[in-house]
Amino acid sequence: MKRKKVVVIGGGTGNFVILRGLKNFNLDLTAIVSMADNGGSTGILRDELGVLPPGDVRQCLVALSNSSSLMRSLMNYRFENGGLGGHSFGNLLLSALEKVTGSFEKAVEEAGKILFIKGKVIPVTTNQVHLKMILKNKTILDGEGEIYISRQIDQGYSQIFLEPYPKVNPHVISEIQSADVIVMGPGGLYTSIIPNLLVEGVSQAIHESKAKKVFVVNLMNRLGQTSGYKVSHNLNEVIKFIGHDVFDYVLVNNSLPPKELIQVYAQEGELIENDLNEERVISTDLIGPLANGNPQDLIKRSLIRHDSKKLAKELMKIVDNL
Amino acid sequence: MKRKKVVVIGGGTGNFVILRGLKNFNLDLTAIVSMADNGGSTGILRDELGVLPPGDVRQCLVALSNSSSLMRSLMNYRFENGGLGGHSFGNLLLSALEKVTGSFEKAVEEAGKILFIKGKVIPVTTNQVHLKMILKNKTILDGEGEIYISRQIDQGYSQIFLEPYPKVNPHVISEIQSADVIVMGPGGLYTSIIPNLLVEGVSQAIHESKAKKVFVVNLMNRLGQTSGYKVSHNLNEVIKFIGHDVFDYVLVNNSLPPKELIQVYAQEGELIENDLNEERVISTDLIGPLANGNPQDLIKRSLIRHDSKKLAKELMKIVDNL
Repeated sequence: MKRKKVVVIGGGTGNFVILRGLKNFNLDLTAIVSMADNGGSTGILRDELGVLPPGDVRQCLVALSNSSSLMRSLMNYRFENGGLGGHSFGNLLLSALEKVTGSFEKAVEEAGKILFIKGKVIPVTTNQVHLKMILKNKTILDGEGEIYISRQIDQGYSQIFLEPYPKVNPHVISEIQSADVIVMGPGGLYTSIIPNLLVEGVSQAIHESKAKKVFVVNLMNRLGQTSGYKVSHNLNEVIKFIGHDVFDYVLVNNSLPPKELIQVYAQEGELIENDLNEERVISTDLIGPLANGNPQDLIKRSLIRHDSKKLAKELMKIVDNL
Repeated sequence: MKRKKVVVIGGGTGNFVILRGLKNFNLDLTAIVSMADNGGSTGILRDELGVLPPGDVRQCLVALSNSSSLMRSLMNYRFENGGLGGHSFGNLLLSALEKVTGSFEKAVEEAGKILFIKGKVIPVTTNQVHLKMILKNKTILDGEGEIYISRQIDQGYSQIFLEPYPKVNPHVISEIQSADVIVMGPGGLYTSIIPNLLVEGVSQAIHESKAKKVFVVNLMNRLGQTSGYKVSHNLNEVIKFIGHDVFDYVLVNNSLPPKELIQVYAQEGELIENDLNEERVISTDLIGPLANGNPQDLIKRSLIRHDSKKLAKELMKIVDNL
């Protein structure tokens, strides 16, 4: 039997979690990755070397890697001191490969070979783009980094766009066309999910694809960004950019995280409440174990994460039902 | 028939040239590499990250690599701008691997796997050492970098040593003991060859080894370092540090480089003249084609190089005669 093709669209940590889970199943897996990141190590590399943003791609490559745990640790290793301070090794690998091959897409392909990845990782565009958001109060947020830290977005925005308006990577369209299942999310609504839909032709391709489409709703809202958004708001926001309600399934978490974190949550956002009572909504426990390690990391990134295995299990029910 | 074990002792570009040539033969190859480099990218990494010097090891790994030419280009790729400016990617790989594995030797081994190397690359010591030279005029040259650029060494030196006095990497001793042929040179006398002999136990192991020992004399002297040295001076200088005249063969170039370079040579040094008329001296054409590329590189590095193939051919005559 031909393996089912699952195309995951997103960026950042959300993509990592979902890919790591799906990697253990017999699937034809493709990750389509947002190219708007301009923060941290990625932002410095873009500014100083003129390369395309490697950070989100690196996370997808690591998620799909079949190489040793050492190689995966190496890719995520961050230098601590001096001129290298803050750079993750995987970002440097992608940027050096881009310089040597002259092409970011080729760089991603070669890094994929080094990491023995299962599946494909495809940048949504290979144009050098910046994400911009104009708020209703006329504030301009310039770059994904500024959008990520803004706490005014829930006051309303008038526009979000990529500049310059990017051409889609043609492989993205063919992957979407031939997908059996397309999964959008989890991930930052304005920083990881929607930036893919701002690339020419992506929304239309998703709409036209015969694939079953799944929206994975985030666990939490981001304070000042999606504050007070319920499941319907999250879903409608994505539908707005696709131009059609394309989703066959909406995957929602219904379990509560451990009590001791309730207070910490408040600094970051609140759990997303399900206000939909539709047949396509799958409401189940999707919360993962707390990331072990530095609690600082938890605060800087998302506090709680989806569980790779639980998420993959629900998605595989959809795949197996095709 | 058991493959012959050839152990090459040196560092830097000389090691690269000889290993690249020998790699094409059915040999059990080991490169023992000096760990005194503190210049350029390597020096910055030592200072900022506290790692062991990766530069010479990187060159050996690339020489022995069976991976794609892209991977080899990647290892030697130097970032051009910003905080990364000047670092070669291979150096960053080795330093990141050292941080992730907690061991430089393990890092070299893992990098060897990534590059599918033939043979082994072994740091002569895994102690953090600095090369020092005290000149007769009491000038102290601190670090291989200072020694490399000094033009006063030919006025005489009273001492050259590694600080602190390093323990040998035990694998070095076993490799030397089990070698069929040991090759020393080509390479900077005070910056690549002798630093290996300043590590505890290395000279004694070379002396005691039953291997045939070959000294490959450099093509040129370095002005202000080995100015006026003939073959005998170069040879005797190495013998002094081993403590015994251990060499069964002395490999000497007898051909002249293209005329148009004679003037450029004068800035850097002069061709080494053969003043020995002994049976063990093999005098033949060993000069390689000029490095293609940037003539600036030629001036910064050595102007003319040994030819990998010619050098390997002569060494294989010795191996095949065992």
